[in-house]
Amino acid sequence: MIKVMVNGAKGRMGAEAANAIDKDPALSLVAKIDRDDDLAASIAHYQPDVVVDFTIASAGFENTQTIIESGARPVVGTSGFLQDQVAALSQLAKTKSVGGLIAPNFSLGAVLMMKFAADAARFLPDVEIVEAHSPQKEESPSGTALRTAELINANRISAPLLRGKELFEGARGAELHDIPLHSIRLPGVVAQQWVMFGGQSETLKIEHNSQHRDSFMPGVVLACKKVMEHNELVYGLEHFLE
Amino acid sequence: MIKVMVNGAKGRMGAEAANAIDKDPALSLVAKIDRDDDLAASIAHYQPDVVVDFTIASAGFENTQTIIESGARPVVGTSGFLQDQVAALSQLAKTKSVGGLIAPNFSLGAVLMMKFAADAARFLPDVEIVEAHSPQKEESPSGTALRTAELINANRISAPLLRGKELFEGARGAELHDIPLHSIRLPGVVAQQWVMFGGQSETLKIEHNSQHRDSFMPGVVLACKKVMEHNELVYGLEHFLE
Amino acid sequence: MIKVMVNGAKGRMGAEAANAIDKDPALSLVAKIDRDDDLAASIAHYQPDVVVDFTIASAGFENTQTIIESGARPVVGTSGFLQDQVAALSQLAKTKSVGGLIAPNFSLGAVLMMKFAADAARFLPDVEIVEAHSPQKEESPSGTALRTAELINANRISAPLLRGKELFEGARGAELHDIPLHSIRLPGVVAQQWVMFGGQSETLKIEHNSQHRDSFMPGVVLACKKVMEHNELVYGLEHFLE
Amino acid sequence: MIKVMVNGAKGRMGAEAANAIDKDPALSLVAKIDRDDDLAASIAHYQPDVVVDFTIASAGFENTQTIIESGARPVVGTSGFLQDQVAALSQLAKTKSVGGLIAPNFSLGAVLMMKFAADAARFLPDVEIVEAHSPQKEESPSGTALRTAELINANRISAPLLRGKELFEGARGAELHDIPLHSIRLPGVVAQQWVMFGGQSETLKIEHNSQHRDSFMPGVVLACKKVMEHNELVYGLEHFLE
Repeated sequence: MIKVMVNGAKGRMGAEAANAIDKDPALSLVAKIDRDDDLAASIAHYQPDVVVDFTIASAGFENTQTIIESGARPVVGTSGFLQDQVAALSQLAKTKSVGGLIAPNFSLGAVLMMKFAADAARFLPDVEIVEAHSPQKEESPSGTALRTAELINANRISAPLLRGKELFEGARGAELHDIPLHSIRLPGVVAQQWVMFGGQSETLKIEHNSQHRDSFMPGVVLACKKVMEHNELVYGLEHFLE
Repeated sequence: MIKVMVNGAKGRMGAEAANAIDKDPALSLVAKIDRDDDLAASIAHYQPDVVVDFTIASAGFENTQTIIESGARPVVGTSGFLQDQVAALSQLAKTKSVGGLIAPNFSLGAVLMMKFAADAARFLPDVEIVEAHSPQKEESPSGTALRTAELINANRISAPLLRGKELFEGARGAELHDIPLHSIRLPGVVAQQWVMFGGQSETLKIEHNSQHRDSFMPGVVLACKKVMEHNELVYGLEHFLE
Repeated sequence: MIKVMVNGAKGRMGAEAANAIDKDPALSLVAKIDRDDDLAASIAHYQPDVVVDFTIASAGFENTQTIIESGARPVVGTSGFLQDQVAALSQLAKTKSVGGLIAPNFSLGAVLMMKFAADAARFLPDVEIVEAHSPQKEESPSGTALRTAELINANRISAPLLRGKELFEGARGAELHDIPLHSIRLPGVVAQQWVMFGGQSETLKIEHNSQHRDSFMPGVVLACKKVMEHNELVYGLEHFLE
Repeated sequence: MIKVMVNGAKGRMGAEAANAIDKDPALSLVAKIDRDDDLAASIAHYQPDVVVDFTIASAGFENTQTIIESGARPVVGTSGFLQDQVAALSQLAKTKSVGGLIAPNFSLGAVLMMKFAADAARFLPDVEIVEAHSPQKEESPSGTALRTAELINANRISAPLLRGKELFEGARGAELHDIPLHSIRLPGVVAQQWVMFGGQSETLKIEHNSQHRDSFMPGVVLACKKVMEHNELVYGLEHFLE
């Protein structure tokens, strides 16, 4: 049994994570703590193998550092880390020979979509991304769309983007690394994304739909198990889906 | 048997139209003419009930006028008419009590998509349009997307458009009458459009795919029959799909 | 202000309906009653223009009869009526010159999908229906899929169904009126249906997604208003979407 | 420059393959032969590095044997091989230390779809397959759908299939390895397949559309290059998309 402690257990994500961990037969939920508790002291006391951290982004770096230094394995859900911070934490984990995960997205479906999109781009470099969310989402494109474009770009043979002539400005969407991004905002939609590839007389479309934030939970549970098999800190759940 | 003459029969669309008319048991193809022939003289000679005109846009107005004045019923395929020209031809048809059709699109599927989109917007005013074509299509959005937006706008209770904040310019697409339009250009795509409506906890999507320009032919054949039942000139095949 | 009473207000649908009616500026919620209350006496006391009934199917017929006889207009949500019962209630409503609605589905999107599907089938008779629900839905095909097939069949020029050869039994789906029906049962899906039409070198797809039963509420509110303009009882919300 | 000979060059696929190879700057088309020519003698004469074979299925085994024994690398497009035949040819290639490929499908998009589907099933075991073709395709399900199910089955943790109760027989489709398969046959469709995965509050859909058999050509060209880097014979283009 893998012993797991949840930090940020009073927040929505943390509470659901604790619940999901508690239900899994291979995991043992040893403690639920929150910002009022002392993280290092709690680790010393409960001796968890893994600490799941769903606290606020600003606390993420320090928490992860504390977890690693205490000898536990961090599974951290946030998109707010700087590249330098991730590098520093990776170095620390290496020194301690401890596995860890920082992930902006724990949805298995979304992470597979991104992984497949990056892979497909090696053979089908012509690609556009469409995402749809509810009108309450204020910023566009979504973080997932931007990250998908980054992952595609890291993999694909560059393809020249043909924007053509826009009769109405914005028709061809936004662009990141020559990949067009289109954002739809409609009521009745929770979170969707489709990545469309064009080839010779064929198209390939990878589509993800998310109904609810509890789609993250199977990914959190998976991460608690997989982190035990690693002795490095990785960024992105895709590294645990090899 | 309805007697049909095809003008522009050496062009691609005209040739396919003549072929489709010839095969239909209720239609009789009485003549195929082209720009070298005299349109009025040909009508006088062959006495067609209907003249299908697939010549170049610039000749369309004069041809339609000639057809009506000769007492035949025009079925004209072009998107190049000005509103004033359509109005003048409608007036002329009314005087002559002759039915006629000018249509930018003869695809039954595309015309039904536009008709349904306009109808749905009466009840679900939140809508966005995505269209996809091959990179060879230089201008965006497509004419069909723009016409769909016009038809929706004529029908819907206005809905405020929430653009939100664009982190990358163009993410929320182009706009016509507060309807976002998104254009995708990828190899392997011929012509697609989907109109997405959002409601309370539900979405409705109307999607059209066209593989080849011969998708126009059933619409041309239908128009040759329906035009016999009208004594007015209408713009848009949707008027024959009531 | 239209005065509305809700019967079955302690049930999930009734409670949400009462809530939605209460929020609408053109409707006034005058009473919420349940099976313990006397329906006829409540109508006599509160004098509603409209009675929304979301009670159990077995009570539906008698309730609707009572509502009409009391001079109010019924808006009844159930799929459990027999054709004879609908006919009898229509006759009664006619005698009393009272409008009414019995509807198996109040989702605007779903009802528009069915209406458009029936209309498209007049021009594109080749059609198949795919629906997807969660594995908790025990029976297949769904009621909406069956009703869509009925509506299509009432409208279309018959098209011969080519089943071809099934290497594995069931591949070509179920059949109602020569229309193939395919049922998908997967976790993560709430309720989806797509109606696919095939034409010459083109396809038209009408797709509906429902996230939650509260997608019914805008349809209930619309029905409460539209029922005031009718003096007949109709079956199916589509009659109010003309 | 890799020297390529095409066998079956008078057939449709062979002719297109020869054309595509001829246009590629890294490949040199050294000969086009057909059933009237002597395969072994032609290899001896033209000394190709690779022989692309698009002849009839019944000749495939013997041709592949001849190619390997002549020291060239076979790229064979057929779905007609028995497992024993593939095993025998693999053994022969191993002895000769020669790379080779036998592939039922050269479409990059279709092969990527199958590869991703097999991978996704490791994490999302609930899956159904829908495929659509024109009514001219007589057998259902398609070979691609069956092969997709085989690949998924080889990879996934088994998931119990809930068929539920079929009100109309066939609604839940055909089954292979507990994976439901649904076949749509409609005019206007060339070849489509979508593989739908359901997870916790999320779905992942992988969709492939093929317009024309020339979608095979980029895969054939890729195979001619990749086969040079292998010294074993593999079955399925996915082995060259690692």
